[in-house]
Parts: sequence; C-alpha cells; structure tokens
Amino acid sequence: MLKEMIRNIIKPTLIIDKSKCLRNIKRMAEKARNSGVKFRPHFKTHQSAEVGSWFRSFGVDSITVSSVSMAEYFFRNGWRDITIAFPVNILEIDHINDLAAHSELNLLVISRETLKFLIENIKTQTGIYIKIDTGYHRTGILAEDVMELDILIEDIRNSNKLEFKGFLTHAGHTYHAKSINDILSIHEESKRQLLTLKERYSSAFENIIISVGDTPSCSIATDFTDLDEIRPGNFVYYDLMQHNIGSCSLNNIADSMACPVVGKDSSRNEIFIYGGAVHFSKEYLLFEDGLKYYGLIVHLNDDSWSEPLKNTFLARISQEHGIVKTSPEYFDNFNIGDLIGVLPVHSCLTANLMREDYFTF
Amino acid sequence: MLKEMIRNIIKPTLIIDKSKCLRNIKRMAEKARNSGVKFRPHFKTHQSAEVGSWFRSFGVDSITVSSVSMAEYFFRNGWRDITIAFPVNILEIDHINDLAAHSELNLLVISRETLKFLIENIKTQTGIYIKIDTGYHRTGILAEDVMELDILIEDIRNSNKLEFKGFLTHAGHTYHAKSINDILSIHEESKRQLLTLKERYSSAFENIIISVGDTPSCSIATDFTDLDEIRPGNFVYYDLMQHNIGSCSLNNIADSMACPVVGKDSSRNEIFIYGGAVHFSKEYLLFEDGLKYYGLIVHLNDDSWSEPLKNTFLARISQEHGIVKTSPEYFDNFNIGDLIGVLPVHSCLTANLMREDYFTF
Repeated sequence: MLKEMIRNIIKPTLIIDKSKCLRNIKRMAEKARNSGVKFRPHFKTHQSAEVGSWFRSFGVDSITVSSVSMAEYFFRNGWRDITIAFPVNILEIDHINDLAAHSELNLLVISRETLKFLIENIKTQTGIYIKIDTGYHRTGILAEDVMELDILIEDIRNSNKLEFKGFLTHAGHTYHAKSINDILSIHEESKRQLLTLKERYSSAFENIIISVGDTPSCSIATDFTDLDEIRPGNFVYYDLMQHNIGSCSLNNIADSMACPVVGKDSSRNEIFIYGGAVHFSKEYLLFEDGLKYYGLIVHLNDDSWSEPLKNTFLARISQEHGIVKTSPEYFDNFNIGDLIGVLPVHSCLTANLMREDYFTF
Repeated sequence: MLKEMIRNIIKPTLIIDKSKCLRNIKRMAEKARNSGVKFRPHFKTHQSAEVGSWFRSFGVDSITVSSVSMAEYFFRNGWRDITIAFPVNILEIDHINDLAAHSELNLLVISRETLKFLIENIKTQTGIYIKIDTGYHRTGILAEDVMELDILIEDIRNSNKLEFKGFLTHAGHTYHAKSINDILSIHEESKRQLLTLKERYSSAFENIIISVGDTPSCSIATDFTDLDEIRPGNFVYYDLMQHNIGSCSLNNIADSMACPVVGKDSSRNEIFIYGGAVHFSKEYLLFEDGLKYYGLIVHLNDDSWSEPLKNTFLARISQEHGIVKTSPEYFDNFNIGDLIGVLPVHSCLTANLMREDYFTF
C-alpha cells in the first residue's frame, strides 16, 4: 500500500503509480497492434530501467531515446533495438560506433554534412532515418524539399554501411493546438506528407518506414493504419500539460510529487512546501484568468491519490521552495510535516530532475 | 588553456571560468571585510565541493545551504559551520540531529509548530534563526508581527538545546526591481526592519545577528555596516538575469554551457544545438520587444569566451534541443560539430542540472 511506503519519504520524491502506467502502456500498445504498426516508445520521459522493463510484457522490444547517453543507459539495461531520435551529434561518433557494434541502432539525419561524416566514419551497419519537418519547424527537412531528400537518399544508398530506414517526424505543433480536431488535422497532414514521400521513394526502397511520435496525436488518434511506427513517450506518465491539450484524463496521470509541508500562512491561505524548481522544473500552465501554476495539489491516500483539490495549486516556486495557494475550505487540512502530492505540469522534465529520488508502487 | 580542454567535450557541458569566479568571490569577500560583516556564502548555486573549496583562501569557513541534503554534502566535504536557510522540514529530524551532533549547525524557523517540534526533538546544541519577511512575501514572519516574534523567541529562550542566533531575511523582491535605486531602497528597508528587531531584543540577547542574502543587494550595495552577515550565492557565477537586474557586468559571468552544433537552417538563420531544457532549465528572459530568450551565444576561445554575439540567442528549447536564432552575418561562422558557448539565464538552475557534467578551468 502506498500509505506504508510514503512513511519513508522525508523529502521531495516522485511517486509513480505502476497500475496507471501499465494501463497507459496497454492502451497505447493495443492501439498500435490494432492498427498493425510498430510501437517504439520514447524512453526520454521516464529514463528509468525499472519503468522501461514494464513495457516488455506488452511485447515491446524496440525503443526510442533522445541522446547517445540515454541509448547507452538503456543498452546497459538490456535493450538492443534503439532509435536515437535526435539529429546525430558527430562529436559522439566513438560512442555511436560502440553502440552500433553491439545493437540494432538507428540514427537520425537532417543534413548532408552530417551524412557525409557518417558515411566516412561509421564502422558497422546502421539504420538511418531522415527527419521530416511536417510543420513544427524545429528541425528536419521539409517534406516538399525533394531535391534535398533525393541527394540525401542517394548518398545513403551509395554507402555500404548505412541502411535507409525511412522518414521520421515529430509533429510537436500539436502541443499548441487549440482543440482535439486541430490535433487530428495536424496528425492527418503529417501523415499525408510522409505517405507522399514513402510513395515517391518506394520503387527504390521496398520497406520504407514512416514514423510519428508526439503524444497528443498518438493519444487522440484512434487509427494508425498507413503509418508504420509510433514513438510516443510522455503517455507513460502523462501530466497536466497533456491533460490541458486533451490527450488524457486527470486520472491517467501516473506520477505525482510527494512534498513535505514546512509552513503555512493563514492570512494568505498559503502552504509552504519543500519542492521547487530543482524538483519540478519551471514549466508552467496558465489558468483562464492568466494566472500561472506549476502543479495541482492532490491528497496522497492509502492506494494512490485524490482528484486535484479545487482552488488549490502550486502558485510560485523558487529553487527549493514551493508556495501553494489554497482556499479557507482546505487550509486546515494541511499540517506541517504532512506530505502533499503535486501533479506535475511536465512529467518529462520533472522525472529528469528526480532520477535519483523516485519510487514506484 | 581552455582550447585544449574543450577538445574532450562531446555533449552539453557547463564550463566554469575559475579566474572569473575567484574575482567574484574576492570582490564580495573584501566588501564584507571592509564593512566588518561575516561572509557566509550560499552554496546552493554551485553545489560543488571543488568550487566551494575556492572560498577557503578568502577566509571563508562558514556557509549557507538550502537543504539538509546539501548540508550533508558539504559536511562530507569538510565544512563544519553551516546555516540551512530553508524552513526546517521536520521529517528530516534524524538527519538534522546527525548534522548537529558533528557541526555548528544553524536552522531556520518560521512557525510555532516547527519550533515546538524542534524543542522536543533536537538532541544537541543548535543555532536558530527566525526568518523575517521584509517584503518579498515568500516565507517568514513579518517584522511588524512582534507578538508572534515575542512568543517564538521566548520559546527558544526556554529551550536548553536551542540557541537564538538572530534574524535572517532573503529580500528576493530585488529580483523584480526596475532599477539600481529600487534595489538599494529594498536593501535599506530590509536593513531598517532587521535593525528595529535587533534593537527590540538586544536587552535579552547580546549578540543578535542580522543576516541578509540576495545577490542583487549584496552586489550593488557598497556598505554593509550595521548588518552582521551577508549570504549571497548566485554572485559566484552570476548569469544573464543578474546582468539584467544590474548586479554584474557580462564579463563577470563565470559559467557558460558548451553545446555541440548538430544542424543549421540558412533559410531561417537558425543553428540547432544539443542543449535544451534538461541542461538549461526553462528559465527565460524577455527582450524589449517581448521575445523570449533562454541564453546568449558566445564563441569559446583559447582563454575563455567572447562577448555575446549580436542578434544571436537561444530562442527555443525542448527537452534536448536548442534553437539558436542568429543573423546572416554570423550564420556561416557556425559549423556542424562546433562547440558554441551559451551564457545561462539562471546559473543556479543550470548548475543544478549539470552537476555531473561540468568542468572548471
């Protein structure tokens, strides 16, 4: 029971509800299977060997990561089919070669310069995806820039070490979508662009994979037919940002931060917690009236945690301090020495900060 | 030479210019000495045994930290006079007792409940400061709330383990000040409030210490006469936020992040770097036109780094990616595989994230 376990918590600690995680993983794994696409979850959210191991029972044996260091970590923990979904950092070529020598490794390319470097320096058979920018405008080659794509693909084809795998995108603009329909439109448009490319190069390559990744699309779309692979990451925990976007219900959020109450101010209806920017990051959301919040507050109970308390939120944070605004109705429920739960705004950044201070139940 | 050392950097790494740090420490230590106040630097910014050791040669033997864990870390590294400038977290009482048994430990109290707990549970002689809220309104007792202070101080006096040390404040509202004069006004007003309290309780306690902490005040004020102790932390590195406030010149900023260039987009004058929210945090500043920036870009050179490049800034970050906006003038100076330097917006949060990936030169 959670109640027994939290007796040992004396400082900010990320608690991870395994049952909720398993439901989140199961839902996504089934959706992928029903659509006949490969499920290659992104492990950048949890960065945890333990949480990663939970995916095994759903048939997952291939993963996505966002750095060479993360690939090495999961390699050490038994994963052997890894896509590093971040433009190749050529300074890490020795580490990349080590990984490629001992695993099925896929790399991401966005430029001729890097591709040329890889052709000259890669030592083992390695998969290559080209990152396509379908509208997010972070990195990648625009889908309509077929002249550039022709050149890249020709270079890959002429290499005896690099194997062209396909086109990968991260439609991160779904994070700024205003409605479920907007997200689905972005998803459809990304898919359309990738399908056009697959068609264009299908005579030269039989098994081109088209791969999409963002959690909003993967959560909201019900059918991935036509795609070959999905790579969502955040869905394992979800968070308040995903809830606001419409990707999940509050009850799907599988992590919360347990924070000690260290003070109270009745005149301001404020609770002071040990828990700040070094635990949560400074990612925030806005209420409708424009007020910032860094988390919502829940009661930790015997089995898990409550729904968020009304009119109660993490209003300000500094390095180690958090200030929770609440209402007179709840104020007396909080006592110095209590642990309160905080649902995070952005689980990926919170989990990254709490890699040494978390537990699962 | 820096040039030799950065050859080994292959991923985001915080580089710390020891000469600049030493100058920052020397300036603050001399200002404290000239004013006859104790210099008890806050070590939450660097959280590094190595950087901490640099303070020794300036006569520093007492430090400030913001958590019990940080106190334990610096205790293990030889520090024996430590103030934990964070309201006591009663859940950590066993750790606090261990520390108190082996060091000169000062704790911070903001409530009767916590004080009562300490009186009943502390095992060794321990110093107590009362945190005063002089206007920042984060935590602490208002200076005018003398009824509450009378009660707290009477309780401390009646304890045979707790020793009343004095009043401590963090005038964090200087971070929102609009001018140097505003900062000095806040500093003077904080000092006035603390002096009034010192006077009020001076007949009962001979050696009341009044202690102030924020880096803007400590950097800008030239005279600390009347105070007993200063506890600035950020000044050891400074950062763009402090520069904007007016606490330092750009040349005083003693840390920068070395980040690999992984891509470029000439049509957008953008450089893609390996370096994102898990390296910098998501703290940002605004240009006059309201545009956000997460860092300014410098060239790493043989000895240290250049002034920030004009019209060149870290414009967007996601978990591992950074997008640098630049001008056509500089665009061609950046090449894939280069390391660029980024001056951080908030050194405390950046250094916290990079505790395993930094080096000093």
